[in-house]
Amino acid sequence: MRVLIIGGDGYLGWPTAMHFSNRGDAVCVVDSFDKRRWELEEGVEPLLAIPTLQNRVREWKRLTGRDIDLRVGDICNQRFIYKVLETFQPDAIVHYGEQPSAPYSMHSRETAVYTQVNNVVGTLNLLFAMRRHVPKAHLVKLGTMGEYGTPNIAIEEGWITIEHEGRKDTVLYPKKPGSFYHLSKVHDSANIEFACRIWGVAATDLNQGVVYGIRTPETEMAPVLRTSFHYDHIFGTVLNRFLVQAAIGEPLTVYGKGGQTRGFLDIRDTIQCVTLACDNPAKSGEFRVLNQFTEQFSVNDLAGKVVAAARRASIDVTVRNLPNPRVELESHFYEAKHSKLLDLGLKPHLLTDESIDAMFESVRRHVEKVDRQIIQPTIKWAQ
Amino acid sequence: MRVLIIGGDGYLGWPTAMHFSNRGDAVCVVDSFDKRRWELEEGVEPLLAIPTLQNRVREWKRLTGRDIDLRVGDICNQRFIYKVLETFQPDAIVHYGEQPSAPYSMHSRETAVYTQVNNVVGTLNLLFAMRRHVPKAHLVKLGTMGEYGTPNIAIEEGWITIEHEGRKDTVLYPKKPGSFYHLSKVHDSANIEFACRIWGVAATDLNQGVVYGIRTPETEMAPVLRTSFHYDHIFGTVLNRFLVQAAIGEPLTVYGKGGQTRGFLDIRDTIQCVTLACDNPAKSGEFRVLNQFTEQFSVNDLAGKVVAAARRASIDVTVRNLPNPRVELESHFYEAKHSKLLDLGLKPHLLTDESIDAMFESVRRHVEKVDRQIIQPTIKWAQ
Repeated sequence: MRVLIIGGDGYLGWPTAMHFSNRGDAVCVVDSFDKRRWELEEGVEPLLAIPTLQNRVREWKRLTGRDIDLRVGDICNQRFIYKVLETFQPDAIVHYGEQPSAPYSMHSRETAVYTQVNNVVGTLNLLFAMRRHVPKAHLVKLGTMGEYGTPNIAIEEGWITIEHEGRKDTVLYPKKPGSFYHLSKVHDSANIEFACRIWGVAATDLNQGVVYGIRTPETEMAPVLRTSFHYDHIFGTVLNRFLVQAAIGEPLTVYGKGGQTRGFLDIRDTIQCVTLACDNPAKSGEFRVLNQFTEQFSVNDLAGKVVAAARRASIDVTVRNLPNPRVELESHFYEAKHSKLLDLGLKPHLLTDESIDAMFESVRRHVEKVDRQIIQPTIKWAQ
Repeated sequence: MRVLIIGGDGYLGWPTAMHFSNRGDAVCVVDSFDKRRWELEEGVEPLLAIPTLQNRVREWKRLTGRDIDLRVGDICNQRFIYKVLETFQPDAIVHYGEQPSAPYSMHSRETAVYTQVNNVVGTLNLLFAMRRHVPKAHLVKLGTMGEYGTPNIAIEEGWITIEHEGRKDTVLYPKKPGSFYHLSKVHDSANIEFACRIWGVAATDLNQGVVYGIRTPETEMAPVLRTSFHYDHIFGTVLNRFLVQAAIGEPLTVYGKGGQTRGFLDIRDTIQCVTLACDNPAKSGEFRVLNQFTEQFSVNDLAGKVVAAARRASIDVTVRNLPNPRVELESHFYEAKHSKLLDLGLKPHLLTDESIDAMFESVRRHVEKVDRQIIQPTIKWAQ
């Protein structure tokens, strides 16, 4: 299979690229390195520095003998993405190439507008480029479980059958996203569904939960092949933040009441899911939505797990509730369906004591690199 | 009341501005004149030339003694709209300022991307500007019934209560729009709902049907105060096209089977509805959605009405079915609720034989101005 990875420099893009390359697929990665610029704008860095993508592609070749085709450019430039599709002719396009941070999108008018324009225009350009050059390719788009918000009914996988006043229809699941970033993903999903409907595009929208972990078989091959671990208030996720706070002996900061519940998954399962989607493509004209996570946890659940992991390492950690910088429900019903990827063959790696201990141990090994100034949230949803 | 009309040069913006001005409200109009540029790009014109907005504002002052405050600029330039809100301090903001044509948005990648960026960024800038300078103002945003598409269940007004697996929630009505333009309005609605939720913005989203007619009490005061009548394939609507085709003795062109059913309303009712929304504002934090139309017709219904009107004027007209340039259902269930504006006091002007005869008569009076080259559709949704 010929697989194009958009956002190949990223936390998930790079391990995904190595995975497909390792199993013998022809892999091309695209990146604009905008993510590294957003980090500079906000003054945040991953725990361990990430070598340039060019360097990692060279090391990958040296270690495995396999080529990854690297194209540097921005999909918001339509000429660039048209050219990539024309010349690489992918069978599957895995699209991670978006601004991925809710707090970044809430920083200012500029970042809100930028996030929506960047994500929506990039995806529109990709759809038009597919129509022109690879109309039979399969688009695998990374969405987010955050598109759904926290409704008081079960979250279905993208579509829901509604009975209303004696009639019935299957419609797109109603969304209620929680940031301008999450809204950009909702806009993308709506645009992609339309392209499937009118042009016969085959698309899978992977509404992904919060990913944790940095180890995959390929990242473990050599330190230079590592992927990024973000614990900061812009690009970091809650579990990473808790692990770092426990490692430096500071209280775990829970935003608000901590009843916020979300879907989570191990990075290895992200790669499994993306691979399953590529290997079992949507049909022409189908807008397939898969909810991509393996377990649900509340923020308080995660705090409890990290406190327990720290205790197993003989470290006493406390929990502190901060005023919530976000506007969101802090105690709510949450039941999200996620059977379709299991039906395709997903074998989940769950968040066991062993896996959390391994993550904690790896953070502790680099504890001297932690920047304490980038952990506390400074961006507020309303003020 | 201080009323800001964004898109004050447009088909609906100008009559709305005169209406509020006439009843004694303080009115400011904003326009970028982009719409006139889009007409030039596509080589289309309204049936009768429309004087400059500056000229109309002067004539309005001369005829009524009333001032309309005109600000020329683009709301995609945030400095412009921030300044307008800061200095004019509106109580109500009527936002018509968007690219309004589905065919224009489907012309090319460029126009699709342009339409979404123009509409989404303009509205985001407006929301941020409101938050900064007039957080208590009421946003009255023109949406479209086309955001809903044609579901197989009744269309509610913006929100729907769903029972699902024994639980219940009231959620945003699921949308399935039919063009990149309609999608831009869906994106806007989602962004506005979020602004209401997190910032307490008061907003009314008027999901409007297809508007017909060009006469309001104020446009009738003098020819110079007229508003535009578009019958072309880009900015024209189906009823206008049929009236023009009947007047020039050509067959009425029905796209596909003609069972496409939509909501319609008289321009006087648009102005009534917008006024009712302004006079009965949404509450802080409320995202209120009103379906703004008075009657449902299929394309075949309208063709029949125009054939009958022509016959009353002793003109024989035939109907011709063209291959549908759009991708849409041509025969479908359609039942859209529209009681909330009636509850607020709307007194509909229905599409009677008399009203259609009057429109037909006014088109016939200017039949020599018809450009036959701009009627047939050239933009296809899929090809």
